[in-house]
Amino acid sequence: MQPEPVPSPVLIGLDWGTSSLRAWLFDSTGQTQEEKILPHGILNLPEGGFNAVLEKICTPWPDLPLIACGMIGSANGLRNVAYLPCPGSIAGLADKLEIHPTPRGPLHIVPGLMQRGAMPDVMRGEETQIAGVLAQHPGTTSHTTIVLPGTHSKWAIVKEGALTEFRTFMTGELYAVLSKHSILGRLSSTEPTTPDNRAAAFRQGVLSAKTGIPLSARLFSDRALVLAGNLAASCAPDYLSGLLIGDEIQAGIHLQPRETPPVIAGEDTLCEHYRTAFRILGYPEPELIGNTAAAGLFLIARKAGLVPDPRSEKGPLV
Amino acid sequence: MQPEPVPSPVLIGLDWGTSSLRAWLFDSTGQTQEEKILPHGILNLPEGGFNAVLEKICTPWPDLPLIACGMIGSANGLRNVAYLPCPGSIAGLADKLEIHPTPRGPLHIVPGLMQRGAMPDVMRGEETQIAGVLAQHPGTTSHTTIVLPGTHSKWAIVKEGALTEFRTFMTGELYAVLSKHSILGRLSSTEPTTPDNRAAAFRQGVLSAKTGIPLSARLFSDRALVLAGNLAASCAPDYLSGLLIGDEIQAGIHLQPRETPPVIAGEDTLCEHYRTAFRILGYPEPELIGNTAAAGLFLIARKAGLVPDPRSEKGPLV
Repeated sequence: MQPEPVPSPVLIGLDWGTSSLRAWLFDSTGQTQEEKILPHGILNLPEGGFNAVLEKICTPWPDLPLIACGMIGSANGLRNVAYLPCPGSIAGLADKLEIHPTPRGPLHIVPGLMQRGAMPDVMRGEETQIAGVLAQHPGTTSHTTIVLPGTHSKWAIVKEGALTEFRTFMTGELYAVLSKHSILGRLSSTEPTTPDNRAAAFRQGVLSAKTGIPLSARLFSDRALVLAGNLAASCAPDYLSGLLIGDEIQAGIHLQPRETPPVIAGEDTLCEHYRTAFRILGYPEPELIGNTAAAGLFLIARKAGLVPDPRSEKGPLV
Repeated sequence: MQPEPVPSPVLIGLDWGTSSLRAWLFDSTGQTQEEKILPHGILNLPEGGFNAVLEKICTPWPDLPLIACGMIGSANGLRNVAYLPCPGSIAGLADKLEIHPTPRGPLHIVPGLMQRGAMPDVMRGEETQIAGVLAQHPGTTSHTTIVLPGTHSKWAIVKEGALTEFRTFMTGELYAVLSKHSILGRLSSTEPTTPDNRAAAFRQGVLSAKTGIPLSARLFSDRALVLAGNLAASCAPDYLSGLLIGDEIQAGIHLQPRETPPVIAGEDTLCEHYRTAFRILGYPEPELIGNTAAAGLFLIARKAGLVPDPRSEKGPLV
């Protein structure tokens, strides 16, 4: 019996979105040895552009195969990579990587997915997070809803390892633009607040989804409740957050199969808010499984042959 | 039989909102002799503040009784006038004018309305437009829905001269913040478009309300349709406008009594868009009745005794 080999770095993975860039250095088992974050999303590049940022985030890592997902593969990114169709196999992503030459070597870009029809939808980056969910949680391959909260939240239905349907909710961006640029953000307040008060306002916002009043007629209640003395101005942002997340869950829950609660993947704080909202609305509590982009990048790279696959003779991974 | 007296100005009315100020000079029959518009809403005042703007818009008109509606009666205006309750009589507004002294004489400010309950709502200015609708269209007093499109659209149910219920839709402000500040506004295009193409995109947006997909999951289609090649980028703003207006109508229609179609009051261009959307959704076509703020101010002033009422002995007007 031979000793296990000492893990050494074999891959650099990048999640390069609109507003930020994350990079991971992987060993041959898929463990991340290091993580880096830069604020240089594709719409926020410094002098030197893409190549300068790539050089910066990869230094002093060794020259290794490079794989990237996210908006880097869009018209505003390095290369406009054609969408793959949905429904489609998540495992099939590995066969469709597009290679873009860079001074650091060829960058393998994961394609996004497009759902066609009267109400089309698109994703770029979330397909990789979904691949990561399936890799880390094999049980989710049978028939599961994966919720990916964020600027453009995705609700994705996975069945037998294939993405069958998904829908984008603009929850995070609605919160941002309404808070920064609408009358709902002008409820300034110097009054003190407490975590309990903020949690109560979030709950009040979530429960407004139960009224059946549609979203565009409910948003203004964030202001009216303050004027009526039923909500502290300092808690109005928490109410708005609850209102938008509650609305997303109340709508999304009807997209998904009822037998199993969804799983939620992404950053912990935001996902906790979603789990709380599921609980407030009386739905079974979903499992939180953290950020799976790194796991997805590694899985796709291994299936594409960019890194050695010790289990390749045992059949497909997903 | 005496000859009709020559009309002479008897009142100055102001609709003083967040972003602009309109003023009218009325004769004793309620006809407007002159209209002025300044960009000095309460959040956009020049040096000299409220008094300077008031002096400017009233010059060279004679010293006459002054009445105002809108956000001028809010915490950010000249005086925070308490809301009257809804349900409530529209005619009762005249009894609750608040007087604020100014260098031009006492300014009579019309109070707004507040609907209490778990989902409260407020209006300031629209109560005066509604008074104008009832004055100009006596038939609307029995049981009618009045739609007031705008930044914060109102759907108001009027029954026997009383406002029984209303609901604010943030349609106009959603359109503005999403167009200016979200990813939906970043679909830049230099391709030419035509009125027909723009009308078709508006129609496509309105019809999306029929899918039953909730608003926050439908907004992103404005971008996805362009990426899928099903919508010209140059027409994406028209699609978004249709989507938001269609959503408002589809939701608002369930608030209102079915027997009569709503009436729509406000600026012609925007109201025409609403009428088109009603038609596209297959609802009976509502009547457009223009901007009724001036008529409402005059009616309230007359009921408050600020101007002579030649018909006062014939009983209440509404």
